[in-house]
Amino acid sequence: MNISHIEHVGIAVPNLQEAIAFYENVLGLKCFAIEEVADQKVRTAFFKVGQTKIELLEGTAPESAICKFIEKNGGRGGIQHIAFAMEDGVANALAEASEKGCQLIDKAPRKGAEGLNIAFLHPKSTCGALLELCEDPNK
Amino acid sequence: MNISHIEHVGIAVPNLQEAIAFYENVLGLKCFAIEEVADQKVRTAFFKVGQTKIELLEGTAPESAICKFIEKNGGRGGIQHIAFAMEDGVANALAEASEKGCQLIDKAPRKGAEGLNIAFLHPKSTCGALLELCEDPNK
Repeated sequence: MNISHIEHVGIAVPNLQEAIAFYENVLGLKCFAIEEVADQKVRTAFFKVGQTKIELLEGTAPESAICKFIEKNGGRGGIQHIAFAMEDGVANALAEASEKGCQLIDKAPRKGAEGLNIAFLHPKSTCGALLELCEDPNK
Repeated sequence: MNISHIEHVGIAVPNLQEAIAFYENVLGLKCFAIEEVADQKVRTAFFKVGQTKIELLEGTAPESAICKFIEKNGGRGGIQHIAFAMEDGVANALAEASEKGCQLIDKAPRKGAEGLNIAFLHPKSTCGALLELCEDPNK
């Protein structure tokens, strides 16, 4: 498996507008895109930080993974996932992870935010962190 | 405030050796340093991923923030914090955050892993994520 960099870090937030205001006004970052991913029932806001993006995520329905994460976290936001940019594509990386005994959430790549191919590994196999394999947008 | 990049992402793990094995054998990353930070009651393992590091953290005492995080998380690991590399130093960034009404965990910079100056913002002020301001090691 060949990871080139961290594509983004996903942060669950209870209120996207409030979070954007904090990341812009206090941290001095600039939101360059807001996108709704209907499939995952989330609204996302993106910030570029060097090579990596911060992806703020607000759930748009109680059954979304983001709303469940926040509920489990006592109503507070928190860091939900890390997405690695894969040099050789997501399908190859998924096959390798599966071969090495890693439990997968997605058996095949699917479309995520920004139209990129993505797939999640199961936290049971990663020592706890939710890790996403992501198409490298620079390729 | 001037953030140049994400210095590292901190991941709490119940067992450092098991986690290192996963990150090396499945993800293909290479652990380049293991360090004990007695002050914070943690053992850390570092991996370089492009511009950013992954910092795996294992608590060495039940009262460490890492052990508390894992306990609160049902005994599982998870992504604990994001550290931003500050262009103009940690003290300046802390002063600015405080001036803008942000609640601080550390009122002054202190030494973290790799001998870098660090300080944490309080998640109450950041919409939930634990965010660290970190000295830029390239400066």
